[in-house]
Amino acid sequence: MMDYSCSNLETLRKPLRYLSNEEAAALEAELLGEYRFGPQQLMEIWGHACAIAITKAFPLSSLKRHPTVLVICGPSQNGCIGLACARHLRMFDYMPTVYYPKRSTLALHRDFTVQCEKMDIPFLSFLPAEVQLINDAYNLVVDAILGPETEPSDISEPYSSILLTLRHIRIPIASVDIPSGWDEANVDCINPTVLISLMAPKKCAVGFSGTHYLVGRILPYDIQRKYELNAPEYHGTDCLVELG
Amino acid sequence: MMDYSCSNLETLRKPLRYLSNEEAAALEAELLGEYRFGPQQLMEIWGHACAIAITKAFPLSSLKRHPTVLVICGPSQNGCIGLACARHLRMFDYMPTVYYPKRSTLALHRDFTVQCEKMDIPFLSFLPAEVQLINDAYNLVVDAILGPETEPSDISEPYSSILLTLRHIRIPIASVDIPSGWDEANVDCINPTVLISLMAPKKCAVGFSGTHYLVGRILPYDIQRKYELNAPEYHGTDCLVELG
Repeated sequence: MMDYSCSNLETLRKPLRYLSNEEAAALEAELLGEYRFGPQQLMEIWGHACAIAITKAFPLSSLKRHPTVLVICGPSQNGCIGLACARHLRMFDYMPTVYYPKRSTLALHRDFTVQCEKMDIPFLSFLPAEVQLINDAYNLVVDAILGPETEPSDISEPYSSILLTLRHIRIPIASVDIPSGWDEANVDCINPTVLISLMAPKKCAVGFSGTHYLVGRILPYDIQRKYELNAPEYHGTDCLVELG
Repeated sequence: MMDYSCSNLETLRKPLRYLSNEEAAALEAELLGEYRFGPQQLMEIWGHACAIAITKAFPLSSLKRHPTVLVICGPSQNGCIGLACARHLRMFDYMPTVYYPKRSTLALHRDFTVQCEKMDIPFLSFLPAEVQLINDAYNLVVDAILGPETEPSDISEPYSSILLTLRHIRIPIASVDIPSGWDEANVDCINPTVLISLMAPKKCAVGFSGTHYLVGRILPYDIQRKYELNAPEYHGTDCLVELG
């Protein structure tokens, strides 16, 4: 026990590291390769933890009337995490609605979609262009649209229009991993109030001033040391920790 | 919201259902088939929830010296859940040791084994026949040996010897899903103090008088209704609820 305590104390003294997109991709590849984690397992863990983070930031008691949440899912991994997040939010008595304009054909993503549909979670066929409709219908938006793998210059339709709409809504946005459309050079896009970083925060989030959670309490200690993550300690059995 | 509240209230009034082994197998087959859950996803969810249950029943502060836990894993699904449970216990600062005498050749089970090994969780090469050695070295045993699919009359070596040893240890046992070797007709085997039922309690546990947790807060409402589970409500974002 002595060893573990000492290393935790040392970790606390070092500043948290923000990973470049390349480092984040390398860490995930290592987790899936050498450490034999599976994509289905990771999506489930991250989606569950994102849902928990949302319950912390937006408790049921703080939401108007029906606890509606609009979860916008992109075409890749972040979208799949959004689907798992929506399902867990439903189990926590929220009322998620999913907007998933371009469905992935990957079996894993299809399965996570069916899991939502079988929970009677509604899927929108289009996003209202009139922001007032979104403001009125939902308490918040979960941005599970684009991850660090998408260069802002490569953002195409329908995502560029969606992000334009999200720049004008008044309800809060909670972003998964990074705010969609942000990179190290450019954060002039959507403006989330909550950010949920997966495994480690990314460099584009260095200046993020909202409520910032770190989730994914599964990283083997060797990986934490290799990437010098210096993550703060999780409390008890919590799956998230607030960064401040 | 009105509908959900009403149905929850009604559920509370009806007695909890204990499933036969055939019903439990049918429910799981439905979850994996029609509802498109994946085995990797389910093992992760259940293993994580079992670890949380163990932290509730045996908080770190209640354990002697080092918070050692012996996790005994069987050859099938329960064993795989035990591996995930051990990994999460390690993240919660417990010191699990795994005894996994017959390793499954399934890729999923092999991957979960590697995940433990990469977390530096030690694997025992044999179980001491001298129970005092087990009593002295560990605070508790997690019984992730045999599930409802194993008829007590079919229990072979090394599991019959392991269960004989576990009948004589003095440290508490926490069993995953069912106490290994129990069935509806016969509970004269090991005597766990904690039982962690997955999705729904099984009929062999009707007379169980220890601390009984229900885990697996993922069941679609349609399945809950179809099998008339009448599970008690989970609190907040808890992944378990205590029965009794």
